[in-house]
Order: sequence, then C-alpha cells, then structure tokens
Amino acid sequence: MSSRTRQMHLCAFLFGTGHHVASWRLPGAPLHDGTDVSYWIDCARIAERGLMDAVFLYDGAALPNMKPDAMARIDRATFLDPMVLMPAIAMATDRIGLVATGNTTYDQPYYVARRFLSLDQLSGGRAGWNMVTGVNPLEAMNFGNAVVPHAQRYERAREFAHVVQALWDGWSDDSFVMDRASGQFLDPHTVRVLDHHGAHFDVRGPLCVPRSPQGRPVLIQAGGSEPGRALAAETAEMIYAVQPDLAGGQAFYRDVKGRMAAFGRNPDHLKIMPGVYTIVGRTMQEAEDKHGALSEATDPVVALSMLTFCMGGHDLSSYDPDGPVPDDLTTEGGTTHLRTMIGIAKARNLTLRQLATEVATGGYGHWAIRGDACSIADQLQGRFEAGAADGFNLMPATYPDGLRDFVDLVIPELQRRGLFRTRYEGKTLRDHLGLPRSERVEHGRPLTAAENGR
Amino acid sequence: MSSRTRQMHLCAFLFGTGHHVASWRLPGAPLHDGTDVSYWIDCARIAERGLMDAVFLYDGAALPNMKPDAMARIDRATFLDPMVLMPAIAMATDRIGLVATGNTTYDQPYYVARRFLSLDQLSGGRAGWNMVTGVNPLEAMNFGNAVVPHAQRYERAREFAHVVQALWDGWSDDSFVMDRASGQFLDPHTVRVLDHHGAHFDVRGPLCVPRSPQGRPVLIQAGGSEPGRALAAETAEMIYAVQPDLAGGQAFYRDVKGRMAAFGRNPDHLKIMPGVYTIVGRTMQEAEDKHGALSEATDPVVALSMLTFCMGGHDLSSYDPDGPVPDDLTTEGGTTHLRTMIGIAKARNLTLRQLATEVATGGYGHWAIRGDACSIADQLQGRFEAGAADGFNLMPATYPDGLRDFVDLVIPELQRRGLFRTRYEGKTLRDHLGLPRSERVEHGRPLTAAENGR
Repeated sequence: MSSRTRQMHLCAFLFGTGHHVASWRLPGAPLHDGTDVSYWIDCARIAERGLMDAVFLYDGAALPNMKPDAMARIDRATFLDPMVLMPAIAMATDRIGLVATGNTTYDQPYYVARRFLSLDQLSGGRAGWNMVTGVNPLEAMNFGNAVVPHAQRYERAREFAHVVQALWDGWSDDSFVMDRASGQFLDPHTVRVLDHHGAHFDVRGPLCVPRSPQGRPVLIQAGGSEPGRALAAETAEMIYAVQPDLAGGQAFYRDVKGRMAAFGRNPDHLKIMPGVYTIVGRTMQEAEDKHGALSEATDPVVALSMLTFCMGGHDLSSYDPDGPVPDDLTTEGGTTHLRTMIGIAKARNLTLRQLATEVATGGYGHWAIRGDACSIADQLQGRFEAGAADGFNLMPATYPDGLRDFVDLVIPELQRRGLFRTRYEGKTLRDHLGLPRSERVEHGRPLTAAENGR
Repeated sequence: MSSRTRQMHLCAFLFGTGHHVASWRLPGAPLHDGTDVSYWIDCARIAERGLMDAVFLYDGAALPNMKPDAMARIDRATFLDPMVLMPAIAMATDRIGLVATGNTTYDQPYYVARRFLSLDQLSGGRAGWNMVTGVNPLEAMNFGNAVVPHAQRYERAREFAHVVQALWDGWSDDSFVMDRASGQFLDPHTVRVLDHHGAHFDVRGPLCVPRSPQGRPVLIQAGGSEPGRALAAETAEMIYAVQPDLAGGQAFYRDVKGRMAAFGRNPDHLKIMPGVYTIVGRTMQEAEDKHGALSEATDPVVALSMLTFCMGGHDLSSYDPDGPVPDDLTTEGGTTHLRTMIGIAKARNLTLRQLATEVATGGYGHWAIRGDACSIADQLQGRFEAGAADGFNLMPATYPDGLRDFVDLVIPELQRRGLFRTRYEGKTLRDHLGLPRSERVEHGRPLTAAENGR
C-alpha cells in the first residue's frame, strides 16, 4: 500500500425523524413519539453499514423552549433518555461509536464518569461523552433553577471534565488477578483514590468500574464560545461545531488547533467535525424537490418559534415578522450559534420570517448543503481539504431515508475519492477517529494508603 | 377454572457471582470483573425461564466500605452502572421485570424519573425503581461529602418520590395526535407542567418522555426503619426487606400493610418480598456440601471485613474476634439490618468471628435457607402462608448455577403446589405483581397555561 490520502470522519447526529422540523409530515415518514427503540436501532445500523465513526444522540433535559402551539406541531419534544437508549443500540451494533450527552451543570461527575465508562465496557470501547453545559433555560428549572452564568458554567465544566477523566484512570489494566487458589481477586496497589477537592466538586473515587477498552471514552464538545474553545483545546477529542461558512470554519479550525500546543497536546488528537445539514438526491433536481417539499410542509408558527428557541427563548412577538431582522435583538445569554445566524441574516437582508424559515429548514444555522452524490462529495471535500474540518457531523433533513441516501450514494463517492474508509480497521471509537488509546495517569494516592486503612 | 390459590412473587437479586463472598473461588464458577454483559444476560434469561417477576440489580456508588486487604479477596467491587446494563438485559429478554436503583440523596428527581420512564418504554413496561437513600459513607464522599442524617434523608426521599411519580404523570395516553394533514403532532392541553417547589427540590417538568406502558414504573423500597416503613406504606409497591425470622417478618408485614389505610391505599398494592439467601441441592446432603464448600473457601479477613462493612464501617479491630459480640457496639448510623444481625448474634451467643462468618456465609443477615427442592419449597411456603411475605427476593449463594438450580428444581415444586405461575399471564411488571396500571393524576397546571405562553 502506498501512503494514503488523509481520510475524513463522519458521525450521524440522530434527532427525531430528521433535522428538518417538518420531516414527519412527508408521506412515508416514520410516525412515532420518540420511544420506538427499533427505529433508533435501524438508524444506527444504517450508519454502521456506512462505516461511519459514530452515531450521536440528541439530548435535552427539558421540553424545547417554545410556545405550546408551535411545540404541538413538531415530533421531537419527546424521546428516550439517550443513556438508556444507547446500551440497546450497543447490543444491536458491532463497531460504530456511540456518543451521548452528559451535562456538567446539573449532573454529578461521579455519575457521568460511571455511566460512560460502563457504556465503554458494554460496547467494547465505543463510547463518547458529549460534554455540555446546557443552554435551554427550561433545563435549569428542572434542577432547582440553578441558572449558572456562562463563564461560571465553563469553570465548572472544566473541573467536571478533569474529575471525570481522572475517575476513568482509577483502575489499571492489570488490576485483576483472579487467582482462585490464593484467594486474591484484585491487586489494590494498582487502584487509585482520587481525593479531588476543587471549587465545585469534592469526589473521592475510585469508580466501581474497571479500566475500559478505550482507557477513557472519547470526550466531545460543541461550544464555540471563547471559554468553550479554551476548554476544547485543553480537553476535547472531537468538536461538534456550528460553522456555516468556509472562512469562519477555517479560522475556528486554526484557532482551536493552535491553542492545543499550550496544553502539550498533538493537534491530530482533536477532530473538528462541524455539523452539516444534508439533503441528498439521485439527481440535483431530486434534492431540490425534497427541499421544496420540506419547505412547503413547514408551518410558519413552527418556523418563528424555532428561531425563538434558537435565541434562548427571546420573545420576538413585538417585531414585524416581515420587517428586517431588528438591530436591537439582544444576543446576551444566547449561543455563538445564534450570533452567527443573526449575522448571516443581516448580511443577506433577510426578513425576520425569512430568517426563521432559514433556521427551520436549513439546519438551525448549521452549514446546509443539498445536491446529488457528486455535488455533496465535492462540497464536503472542499471544506475538508481547505482546512476547515477533519470530518463532519451529519444532520440529514430526514431519517432514516436521508441517512440511507447518504450511505448508499455519497459514501461510495467519498470512497472512490479515497476520502473515506472502505472497512473498519479497528474496533473502538478511538480507532475509528485515529486517536491513540488513553495512557493512564495516576492521580491521588494508592487505595492501600486510604485513611484508617479503608 | 376454579378459584386459584394465592401465588407468591419471586425476584432474582443479581449480585456478583452470587451472594456468598467466596462464590468466585469454587471450581467452575464464573471469573470476571463484573463487566461481562453476556454473564448478566444469561442470569436474567435463567430467571425469565423460571417465570420470575423480575431481576433486581445490585448498586452502590462507591467501593465497598472495607479494608483493601479484604476487598482484594472478593469479586464484587466492580460492576457496570445498572442503568447502563439494564437496557441491554431488556433487549435480550421479553417478559421479566427489570428493577434497578436510583439514589434519592445524590441524584436528581428529574434524571431518575426520566431514566426509569425511558427504561419502561424501552422494555414494554417492565421497569421498577428501587428507591434508596444510601448507607455507605464512601458514597457521600463521591458527591461532595453530602452526608445527610438518616431522618433528613427520608424527608428528602419522600419529596423525591413524589416529584418522580408526578413527573411520570406529565403526559397522557392520548397526548399524540400525529396528523400529517393538519400538521398537529401532539395535544398540548393534555400535558401538565408540574411546577414543584418543595423543601428540597424545585422541578418544573414535564419530562421529555411520554406516558409509559405501566403508567408509572413500579416503586420499590428496602428500608425497614421507622421512616422507611412510613414512606413505604405511603408510596412503595414492592418492599425488599431484611427479615431473618418468622415472627419479625410477620410483625413487619402486619405493621406496614396496616399503615397503608391511612394513605387510602389497598394493602394488596404493596408486595412485601423479604430477601432469602438460598442454597439448593438435588438432595439435602448436596445442599449441605455446597454450604460446606463455601464456608471452607471463605477467607477470615473477608468475613470480619464484611461485618465491618455491614456495620457502616464501624472499626472492629479493637475487639477480640473470639470473644462475644461486644455490648458496646454502637449501631448509630447503621441500618435496621445491622441491629437485627447483632440481636441474632447475642441471642445465639456467637463470637465476633462467628457472627462475621454467619454474615459472610449466610446472606448478610437475611433469612438463609438450604436444602433440596421440597425443603426449600416448604420453607418458602411456610413464611408465605404465615403472613410474613407476598413473595421473596432470591439471593442465591452462587450465580448462575444457584439460580439455575432454583429454577429447575424449586420452581416446578412450587408450581405443583399451585403457589407459582406456570406462564406469564401479562406483559408488564405490574401484571406480574398483580398491581393495576397506574391511574394518571393531573398535577400542576396545563402546559397551555405556561408562563409567557411558553
């Protein structure tokens, strides 16, 4: 074999019956309340057939922050706890990575560490933890109204991530002796008590879960804000970014990878994979027709409400929907995502309603592409080779057919170009992403030195 | 069919390779670090083949509270997060109930409610939530050292249970319209916002999980203390009790069932199922031989340490192990379980070491029985018909063979006596337990009256 072209990484971001709000209204679309486990397994198997790096499950610990009349018209308000669904997907698949969310503002590092290490064990090394701080204010109201300011959320998230990763290192690969004759089952000298005492958490450790196939599950982040970038450079191994335009994507890529040296990290050990909303057709016209059908099925009440939702609940009812995007729209408390979208709308002179429709039908401000296999492959290859991405988090407009079309039409084209694997070469998510197995770091003190001999 | 004999309920409490600390040392016993998913699935399938009501997974959010030299000699320090393992078991079984633990002291009601309702959906109505407040002080050290006094733990648990059950009622069976033509997917008038504001929790709700097959997952409790009994009478649907002797078991049964009227509850809607540690042989002698082999394989270091563990970490090193059980052993902070054990040891004039061996080889103070099928069936029938139990949580000394022996030898004998089902007559855990599907109670306010229209 000669030296190989650099290959792209692909994850399938599973969300409702597709990333378009009206996906469920198309004839033949799946019709369920989000709890049909066979549906989710089918989607994951399609992604695995396509040799993708991972599936990524949407999460949120509250209803969408939108008005009831709009929420009544979408199919994604309800779903299963992703960490209950994921083990079922793990049992029905062999190789594909399994990425789900753990929240650093409302959950506990011990629980998150235990849950994801258990999934890594159960799946033979395929788990990834998408670390989020939470943006939907309705989530805070489900956890004692603990609204934490953005900067403090990230300080807490940083400590949370360090505790979780250190807990994953509590046991050694050779901790288990299992000698029936002598009666020794494990070697306590290999086990570390963390004894973490920080600004936000006190955690003794160790976990009750042994060291896993990956050493540590893969750590994923989404945030594009300043503290989000700093934290990603320090700890993340995959970034699911919102990068709608090429120049912004290149700048983001350079910026985050450039920050890694300060933490002694190899830039190849972080894969930057922006979201990309896709509509794939057998022909260009077929893709346009699908887009047209989805736009037509989009309820205007839903579109405006989706924009409100993306703005963190900002009330738009005082503005003229057919006037320009107002200058005084505050983005305070909103996401980087939101600021990007408003910038795009102003640059294109869109009305508020047009912006809303763009958001609703164009992947919520993510990069949105449509076309036949060749066109889609061209566009992905362009960004990939222009230094804007190591791969992509796919957000098909419709599931499962939009994913199936990507797998059957686009992946073979990427493979022909030498840009995507033709078989899984490893077994773990780290293998797929080209990340080395995590070296164990010995934190805290040996268990044998625990206080009072305990 | 003529009127049927009252039938007993049986759960298999899965724990390591058996409830005896030395189970792993026997020739042919499974040898693994607790993460082998196929082992757990095998055990669950054996229980399902035996038509049992449920499997019940051990949990604990810390290492056992014992010295490293003792912990090194047992095989149960590590295991998978039960709520990651349970969905895998759900996918590999059809009918058996699935009971796991959620901690009311360290976890959040929103998360616990979401997780168990998701498991109920995934499994077609087979989930049960074992509500625990936590007794191992090492657990507190993994969650900010939040050691909460016993009484306050129960106040918090009571509020926690009410919030969880109310969250399970957030959606209605007819919430989903799914009309493609009109574009209406759900009926927001059927959805309730809880808006709970209590002494320990503020939770808005609703969950993102629709109403499940059981309405509410089954609520299980273990605590035998005064506040534990009060809470069980108010909310529990199954009790996993420690009741080693008949008279105590009868008194407990009468007491808890008698308290239910004050809460307007039907005593049949709570199944009291004490733990029973079992060794089954094809003959009486075979059972004795198994017991002998286990006792012989028991390390004295482990035995004394298990006693310390059961005493909530109380240091026994200053006492003579071959002297009597000391009068000044404090049981403060310990469990009802512990007080029961010390009482038994004193009544039988055991030494501290003998008490330790009893604890280690006799199911930690649970009722312990051994014998052939007929003898085991006699003993279970005796307690069942004497008003001490509605059934039992089986704690076989060894897994999987101890469970297999129970299923192959004892269950047919119970069936011959008309005391146990010969097929599953329903699909859900509530069906197996003879509990009605939960009626929905409308808490809080309709979603359509949410503040600011959201």
